[in-house]
Amino acid sequence: MNALSLDTVVLSKDALEIIILDQTLLPGEIKYLHLSKAEDIWEAIYALRVRGAPAIGVAAAYGIYVVTAQLQTDNMEEFCNYFEEKKAYLDSSRPTAVNLSWALNRMGKVVAENRETMTVAQLKERLRQEAHAIREEDIAISRNIGQLGFELLHHGDGILTHCNAGTLATAKYGTALAPIYIALENGWDDLHVYCDETRPLLQGARLSAFEMQTAGVDTTLICDNMASITMKRGKVNIVFVGCDRVAANGDFANKIGTSGVAILAKYYGIPFYVCAPTSTIDMSIATGDDIVIEERPAEEVTEAWYKKRMAPEGVKVNNPAFDVTDHSLITGIITEKGIAYPPFDKAFERMGIR
Amino acid sequence: MNALSLDTVVLSKDALEIIILDQTLLPGEIKYLHLSKAEDIWEAIYALRVRGAPAIGVAAAYGIYVVTAQLQTDNMEEFCNYFEEKKAYLDSSRPTAVNLSWALNRMGKVVAENRETMTVAQLKERLRQEAHAIREEDIAISRNIGQLGFELLHHGDGILTHCNAGTLATAKYGTALAPIYIALENGWDDLHVYCDETRPLLQGARLSAFEMQTAGVDTTLICDNMASITMKRGKVNIVFVGCDRVAANGDFANKIGTSGVAILAKYYGIPFYVCAPTSTIDMSIATGDDIVIEERPAEEVTEAWYKKRMAPEGVKVNNPAFDVTDHSLITGIITEKGIAYPPFDKAFERMGIR
Repeated sequence: MNALSLDTVVLSKDALEIIILDQTLLPGEIKYLHLSKAEDIWEAIYALRVRGAPAIGVAAAYGIYVVTAQLQTDNMEEFCNYFEEKKAYLDSSRPTAVNLSWALNRMGKVVAENRETMTVAQLKERLRQEAHAIREEDIAISRNIGQLGFELLHHGDGILTHCNAGTLATAKYGTALAPIYIALENGWDDLHVYCDETRPLLQGARLSAFEMQTAGVDTTLICDNMASITMKRGKVNIVFVGCDRVAANGDFANKIGTSGVAILAKYYGIPFYVCAPTSTIDMSIATGDDIVIEERPAEEVTEAWYKKRMAPEGVKVNNPAFDVTDHSLITGIITEKGIAYPPFDKAFERMGIR
Repeated sequence: MNALSLDTVVLSKDALEIIILDQTLLPGEIKYLHLSKAEDIWEAIYALRVRGAPAIGVAAAYGIYVVTAQLQTDNMEEFCNYFEEKKAYLDSSRPTAVNLSWALNRMGKVVAENRETMTVAQLKERLRQEAHAIREEDIAISRNIGQLGFELLHHGDGILTHCNAGTLATAKYGTALAPIYIALENGWDDLHVYCDETRPLLQGARLSAFEMQTAGVDTTLICDNMASITMKRGKVNIVFVGCDRVAANGDFANKIGTSGVAILAKYYGIPFYVCAPTSTIDMSIATGDDIVIEERPAEEVTEAWYKKRMAPEGVKVNNPAFDVTDHSLITGIITEKGIAYPPFDKAFERMGIR
């Protein structure tokens, strides 16, 4: 089994249902959900059954099509009102990733441009084509990003990634993991991937480690707080992450913790690349300060919500219990004999420690 | 209930057993273990039933006393050989914290200094006194560190801490949390504590959040990867962490992830203080590169080992699902249309994104 062969979001053959791989059950269980009700599609996005900015866009496009195609009417105004209502509803499922509203707005544009000239049946058919186009384009976009990222890699490189921006986060290939899939297609078998587990929902442990391991890449799972030691040990040559929304100045929102990885990479002098379909670049937003950050339930943090094994069997793990902090980062060392300030060797000497 | 009233490590009244609060069961269950066999004490340290560098030192001191006091002999050489064997065995339980070997060596010094002049019975009594002294001194040391740290605080401060260096990590008061206990004694009720949950074993969620909440401090639990956004939001005025071993140049080992917190603090311009009994300063080690880092089992990362609720009831939680990474930290943004390099606004313009 190779995760790349799993379809993240597709339309059923009869076009009546959207079929979603339930990612909350991975890696333990591969289960597809067949959804047609707006409430169920909203819940699937909110509960991260389908997640990843590009995949959310595809799910929203198919979702608004499937939901509105069910309306039995020949009255265009009735259809358009229903469409707007369901579009706003689906758009409320998650705030941060721009692709959700981007895909829904693109579908809305199809309605606006054709409502005067088409019948309701023709418009429904046109919406179905548009949703398919969004999915097909997403696959092509991911391949392009993968090719560009691949050209930055060197044989033997260690790549660190955060959360999951792989094939499961898109229609296929992913963004941050796409360069690695392209490397595999080119016969490279000497890359090393380090997956941050990505608390609280463990997309790195459950999804990225699963993708990379089933694809045959040397994969090591680490807790988020192990990224620093992994970089310090020289294991990471490059960082690839995905993104949910990029502001006009380049600030970008991505899964919680990404900014910390970027600060670490800068400190250790490691190149840090964001893999972004241009649909995630939101020029209407000047800086990252204007991006709405979703706050999620406390129970995701306080409850051991994932009861089963939460990483693929056999995945390599690094589990260092401690790390070393360089003295250059310390303001002071508070001992019972006083506070030592830099330079610490002199301070320890003055304190009579030997 | 106030965690400060819980004894971490004490000797039983009859001096036959070491009594340890089993910290792997907190916060759900308060259970004391009565141990007298070397194997059980070794396991309690290895499995983190007692943990925190100073508390490990106290446990090792009481442990070597309890184990060797059981030997029925009047022959000093036999006693000393048995002592050395058990000392080496207990010393093998964990490698990183210096206090384990520090306390055992201090007990060994008592043996070396008195073996010629004392009977075995007298030496046993002297070892008991030394173990008590180590515990009593640890309480005094923690109070001193707490007072010095308290003097760095301002009313209303937000304090971020990683792992647990509280009363549970010492004989009493703690190191990194001691300043907050001293603040409470001084009637301060306006501090805010942010506890990194500290994967994989969740000492921050289970122990620090439990300590601070039961002490009546405004306590917020975050995942480790949320420290960056919490600092960026201006919630953190100062960072206090404990340590397991400090090298002569000030580099120090502490719970995995501490170096990442230090790098974040430096980036955001937040003071970062290490709270260190001088017993943790190891002048025989020049830099942090010489500190042995313990590697622990993969299952701690891959299995949801803590089946129950893993944070105290009612604790505040921040759970932002995303964070924003500043553009100054990004090497490049890989889009399907090419790679944008800084300045990104110009790059987006050249790429025709608007």
